[in-house]
Amino acid sequence: MKTLLPDKIDVLFINGHVATMVDNALSIIKKAALAVTGETISWVGKEKSLPQNFKTRCQKIIDCNKGWILPGFVDCHTHLVWAGSRSQEFEMRLNGASYEEISKNGGGILSTVKSTRNASKNDLFILASKRVEALLKQGITSLEIKSGYGLDLETELKILDVIRRLDENFPLHIDATFLGVHALPPEYQHNPDGYIDLVTQAMLPAVKAQGIATAVDVFCETIGFTLPQTKKVFETAKDLGFNIKLHAEQLSNSNGAALASEFNALSCDHLEYLSLSGAKKMAQHNVAAVLLPGAFYFLKETQKPPVDIFRNLKIPMAVSTDLNPGSSPVHSMTLILNMACMLFDMTCEEALLGATINGAKALGLEHSKGSIEAGKDADLVVWDIDTPEDLCYLVGLTPINTIMIKGNIHYTT
Amino acid sequence: MKTLLPDKIDVLFINGHVATMVDNALSIIKKAALAVTGETISWVGKEKSLPQNFKTRCQKIIDCNKGWILPGFVDCHTHLVWAGSRSQEFEMRLNGASYEEISKNGGGILSTVKSTRNASKNDLFILASKRVEALLKQGITSLEIKSGYGLDLETELKILDVIRRLDENFPLHIDATFLGVHALPPEYQHNPDGYIDLVTQAMLPAVKAQGIATAVDVFCETIGFTLPQTKKVFETAKDLGFNIKLHAEQLSNSNGAALASEFNALSCDHLEYLSLSGAKKMAQHNVAAVLLPGAFYFLKETQKPPVDIFRNLKIPMAVSTDLNPGSSPVHSMTLILNMACMLFDMTCEEALLGATINGAKALGLEHSKGSIEAGKDADLVVWDIDTPEDLCYLVGLTPINTIMIKGNIHYTT
Repeated sequence: MKTLLPDKIDVLFINGHVATMVDNALSIIKKAALAVTGETISWVGKEKSLPQNFKTRCQKIIDCNKGWILPGFVDCHTHLVWAGSRSQEFEMRLNGASYEEISKNGGGILSTVKSTRNASKNDLFILASKRVEALLKQGITSLEIKSGYGLDLETELKILDVIRRLDENFPLHIDATFLGVHALPPEYQHNPDGYIDLVTQAMLPAVKAQGIATAVDVFCETIGFTLPQTKKVFETAKDLGFNIKLHAEQLSNSNGAALASEFNALSCDHLEYLSLSGAKKMAQHNVAAVLLPGAFYFLKETQKPPVDIFRNLKIPMAVSTDLNPGSSPVHSMTLILNMACMLFDMTCEEALLGATINGAKALGLEHSKGSIEAGKDADLVVWDIDTPEDLCYLVGLTPINTIMIKGNIHYTT
Repeated sequence: MKTLLPDKIDVLFINGHVATMVDNALSIIKKAALAVTGETISWVGKEKSLPQNFKTRCQKIIDCNKGWILPGFVDCHTHLVWAGSRSQEFEMRLNGASYEEISKNGGGILSTVKSTRNASKNDLFILASKRVEALLKQGITSLEIKSGYGLDLETELKILDVIRRLDENFPLHIDATFLGVHALPPEYQHNPDGYIDLVTQAMLPAVKAQGIATAVDVFCETIGFTLPQTKKVFETAKDLGFNIKLHAEQLSNSNGAALASEFNALSCDHLEYLSLSGAKKMAQHNVAAVLLPGAFYFLKETQKPPVDIFRNLKIPMAVSTDLNPGSSPVHSMTLILNMACMLFDMTCEEALLGATINGAKALGLEHSKGSIEAGKDADLVVWDIDTPEDLCYLVGLTPINTIMIKGNIHYTT
């Protein structure tokens, strides 16, 4: 490791192994040590190469007890601010109703919209806090949360403000994405273009003025919004300086990924029905693919995303919980790692890259998050495991020893 | 509730709802109260029907904060005492190798046998303790653990002794099952009948003499043991007074369930390939069906167990983690509840009955465990959920407030 030696060391991790996630691989350092100065990783390498005076100079030593240090997980696609319960819809689906049928019958997402509109900001914050807390305890240290259960100006702003409060109250890094174009609100059932006008003329400027979202996302789908409607939203969003993301080709191929790529989107998400030409556009514009096996599992889908194409075209594959009440009520990144392997045939290494550095890429955070390198944020999790692959294989177990975010320890057993 | 009023109340739960699991249904009592005297549930009913002096007479009041009290989960089928890691095998399987191929190539279970034989009793105890601790924190209060990674007298006894130590050191109720006939040990690769002789002539009598197992289980399968071999083991086991269980019809129909039924087995487990005639035998002999969706998921099976037949014949369906390193490294009962719904088309109610009263039936514990009734053991979990169905639907979330086992509180947030 050719880095300048730090003047000061606050925390030194010893007696562990590190999976750094650099160079598109686990990039393992066995018997490693890792130094943290302030909010930042200041040194990582073999423990035997540790400069002699590090141990005496540091404020605190953490013994990893032969465990593994990995970057904190980056969960790059969630919808976790909602009110109301969808347990009953789950029972409906068990009895055979499809997502599309539920959606067309005014159930599904619109029941969540109704509850979320009716909830106070404080109640929404309390509900969402429980979910953020659960994700944090699973080793997630960076998180994206989308709005999209308001579908009117007031409620969309309310949700984004709750996300801001979550960011202020929890140690995790939280990015907010505006997803007003998630579903057609009841008021516009027969006037989708009218809703798009509302979004572009009123909502996007208001969100921009308040500075409470960094990206704009759209649900482009046969049961969502058309390609021309998506384009119109992206044009306004781009003009206002937002990053672009897209729910694309989840249930059919709408050529959304190609469109989003032309807008230099950070990511296209889902992608089960992505075409080769769409993938080529993504590769050309350096767009990350966000794969969401939780939704695939919950919707009992059978068409898998084209993982081989992503490999061949070297498109970064991120994985994420997609935490939401309708299609992915999954509160666990380790379960998602397992599902990425079991359902999408990703390797453990690919899944782990997907939950760390490639998740960071999908949020434009790859320069500060998602891998273990001197100079990056000290967002670290120490796991009591024998190999990194255990995180994909041992389902329902979360053997965390220590969680550090920006140099501060937030959880330890 | 027609029960005698208790003289003394140690703990009173108020301000919650109860799913009692009696009468083969959730059997919900909204706005309930529940009294515990010593190790036992002494009263349960509507809070408004609570006798006036209960609150003043009890030692401790637990406010459930509008949460739900359910019986502690009964995990009736696990193999959680093992050493060694199977992460690499997981990668092999991701690359296309089948369970059968891995087994035939001397990998799979035999690698675990080798590691378990080489592990000290103390190391095995430490490894298994982590798993028991994880299950306890998931709301499991009764547990069955099988031997079967020794396949020689010394190691099988070592494993059973570790299970005894787990039972002594953890508050959970733990039942031990002898599964020496789990796989053919390397020493007997060309002499399966010789191994069966060893089991019946040496192992079973030794296990009986030490009193360290209550049941005997066999893996009856094309890649396991034949029907005549299974029968021979059951005859000896029955003579010695053991309860009978069977791994039956997991990968093919070997007619094991019919045989086990004739021995009045407590349960037949897996059962994906069960025939109607086998199911009728089970019904006739009151044998529980233990369904294991974790193994189904991990082995990428497509043949589901005949849930409709179990419903029609009123065969109790239990669900269990099957926690083991080869085919179900699943440490979470709530994930199993979800998989029972998603993969086996069980309803939430059926899944919850499967993890409580029907799990207890599969262990012969239904008179003391698995439902909430006056006189039964006070094995209770208070969940911070809106409806019992949430436990099947909200995956990866374990919103536990309090865990009580035999009247003692062992976990509270």
